Amino acid sequence: MSREGQTSQPKYLRIAAELRGALERGDYQPGDRLPGENTLAADFDVAPLTMRQALGVLRSEGLVGSRKGSGWFVESFRPIRRRGIPRLARGQWGSGKTIWSADDHRAPDVDQITVQEDTPPPEHISDVFELAPGETVCVRSRRYVMEGRPVMVAESYLPQSLVAGSPITQADTGPGGIYARLADLGHAPARFREEIRVRMPSAEEAARLAIPADRSVIKLARTAFDSEGRAVEINEMTMDSATYVLDYEFDA
Amino acid sequence: MSREGQTSQPKYLRIAAELRGALERGDYQPGDRLPGENTLAADFDVAPLTMRQALGVLRSEGLVGSRKGSGWFVESFRPIRRRGIPRLARGQWGSGKTIWSADDHRAPDVDQITVQEDTPPPEHISDVFELAPGETVCVRSRRYVMEGRPVMVAESYLPQSLVAGSPITQADTGPGGIYARLADLGHAPARFREEIRVRMPSAEEAARLAIPADRSVIKLARTAFDSEGRAVEINEMTMDSATYVLDYEFDA
Repeated sequence: MSREGQTSQPKYLRIAAELRGALERGDYQPGDRLPGENTLAADFDVAPLTMRQALGVLRSEGLVGSRKGSGWFVESFRPIRRRGIPRLARGQWGSGKTIWSADDHRAPDVDQITVQEDTPPPEHISDVFELAPGETVCVRSRRYVMEGRPVMVAESYLPQSLVAGSPITQADTGPGGIYARLADLGHAPARFREEIRVRMPSAEEAARLAIPADRSVIKLARTAFDSEGRAVEINEMTMDSATYVLDYEFDA
Repeated sequence: MSREGQTSQPKYLRIAAELRGALERGDYQPGDRLPGENTLAADFDVAPLTMRQALGVLRSEGLVGSRKGSGWFVESFRPIRRRGIPRLARGQWGSGKTIWSADDHRAPDVDQITVQEDTPPPEHISDVFELAPGETVCVRSRRYVMEGRPVMVAESYLPQSLVAGSPITQADTGPGGIYARLADLGHAPARFREEIRVRMPSAEEAARLAIPADRSVIKLARTAFDSEGRAVEINEMTMDSATYVLDYEFDA
């Protein structure tokens, strides 16, 4: 297996690292406007093009942003902490202690929702549901925003035969949401699996999340199993990788 | 909050998406050599430079690689599945069903290990351990490889006062590893927190993982708490984002 060696680093990445260090030290505060590109280039003793490439790296990481006509600024958005496993009562646990600072107290809102019934499933969805050929799914597609900023899109898949005629096929599923309605149908989720990977966004994902094409996304697929071990829902989430800290707490 | 809009997509990203689709359809198989850049450029009706940029995107995703003098090939490396929560006996659970294909049966090996005692801790580590000013830590640094390929580097931090004189300060910690030795010291881990985020690699991380500078890394910080709720170990992992599927299973 060949690997791309990294003996020396391109100059724009060195500059990006220096500027990242300055942000981490607090030389510039969230929301601050940065000096102009030419001023920064002079400060770092590089060509303006190199400076712009370095700023592009920090933008792909969500550390800085740019506004047409008013240059670069330090991102003020705090990452969102997403707890995969519901909090247990724990009192004694020193679980206020976290490695990364993130917003623990707010959840994003849904600003777009569509429901499509009777849709042919993608193959990997069909496989997990063990659907027979020709069986269809109900797809609930949502976008989440926080402070006006898209942070996640999510597609929930449910076997059509399981949910036909139920409130799950409506935009508003009522109190307790999908899981409460699955319980009404006799298929309450009893166990979850969450699978996480990271990749570059598709054009459509980058557009829906309004992120630069070179910022990666977190793909998080959550499968709900009922007490019989049947997969009853798969929620495929696509997150702006700069906005989330994922958090799992569990007993040894 | 301004966001970088994505009304139209650069051509190289469109081409990257087309080629990604071809790989997903199986037009080229893992390990296959791709046609030369000029041939591909002609096939996709773009300039060779655009084609090369598109290939660079797929390399940053770990889908293709390049070898000096023999061009581009389709990566044959299967992602590694990392289970955050130890498997429970479950029999009935349909948990063989996974969304993403990954290698469930092999674990990477350690090919580099160093242990440094009595080291001043980074601030965020000191905070979680609630160390007094001047207190130090023991740092165990490891690199993991699979099929000769670096896939993860990890730094374990432990309070120096807790582990001084114990096998935890040795490269080989003995059967059961760090957690068994913490148990010997009366601080068996009783609960874990795993925090996950994604960012671009530092120059040092890219070099140690031998990944392209534009491929993001997964940062996974695992904190072990003893039965009193005291943080006794923090393991900061840095993973090649193209090589891992993270997996958490838990009861509702």
